[in-house]
Amino acid sequence: MELKPIGRITSPYKTHQDAPRQGKMSKEEMIVEIFPEYTDAMLGMREGDPIFLIYWGDRADRSALRTVPPGHSEEHGVFTTRSPHRPNPLAVNICRVVKIEGNILTVVGLDALDGSPLLDIKNHVPMLDTHLDVQ
Amino acid sequence: MELKPIGRITSPYKTHQDAPRQGKMSKEEMIVEIFPEYTDAMLGMREGDPIFLIYWGDRADRSALRTVPPGHSEEHGVFTTRSPHRPNPLAVNICRVVKIEGNILTVVGLDALDGSPLLDIKNHVPMLDTHLDVQ
Repeated sequence: MELKPIGRITSPYKTHQDAPRQGKMSKEEMIVEIFPEYTDAMLGMREGDPIFLIYWGDRADRSALRTVPPGHSEEHGVFTTRSPHRPNPLAVNICRVVKIEGNILTVVGLDALDGSPLLDIKNHVPMLDTHLDVQ
Repeated sequence: MELKPIGRITSPYKTHQDAPRQGKMSKEEMIVEIFPEYTDAMLGMREGDPIFLIYWGDRADRSALRTVPPGHSEEHGVFTTRSPHRPNPLAVNICRVVKIEGNILTVVGLDALDGSPLLDIKNHVPMLDTHLDVQ
């Protein structure tokens, strides 16, 4: 199961210490470059769209199974947290497309570190993706 | 960027035609096995928890860049849809843990095909993961 980078994120956050705990806490506008061979997959994307953006946490500790989350004193399993450190460091952010210029997106709501490989973008559908809808 | 399977999903859906368009449309309870070497990462998971579950769409067409979504007549870029067919077939479902028995979870809200490799579980935090919070 080999991932292909489909783009690259430019971020002011250089280390995990710089980054907010969640993308939702970030007010930074970031540049997301979609590699030219994948721009066809952007057809119909509009400024203002809410999206799921998935990137690869390439500086994560993939051996981490437990962590002490901020504000807690005891260990949690990483699958019950949002820690970036986990066996498959797949980071899912719900963010908003601010601007589209060719293959360059400006996005707000991302917690990515600078240079993170982009893996996927999906449209975010409130009716489907809201906690209250979970059976 | 090589993914490690952390578990495996047992599903009544054998083909894309069998599966609902979205996990939220599924009322099926599915069995999710966490491989023994990763059960430490489940510490603190509770029955009833809403979670993000990420699996690998191992039967997806990874060459697909455009698709005609159900109910539409014109092509969309796959990054503006929830099509399972995309360069990196990372499927994100918001679902609910119904039961936990050792390393076996029973989960509702999944659209996975039978045998799909599990990649990651994160807790779902309504405050952070709701569309209305997107700036």
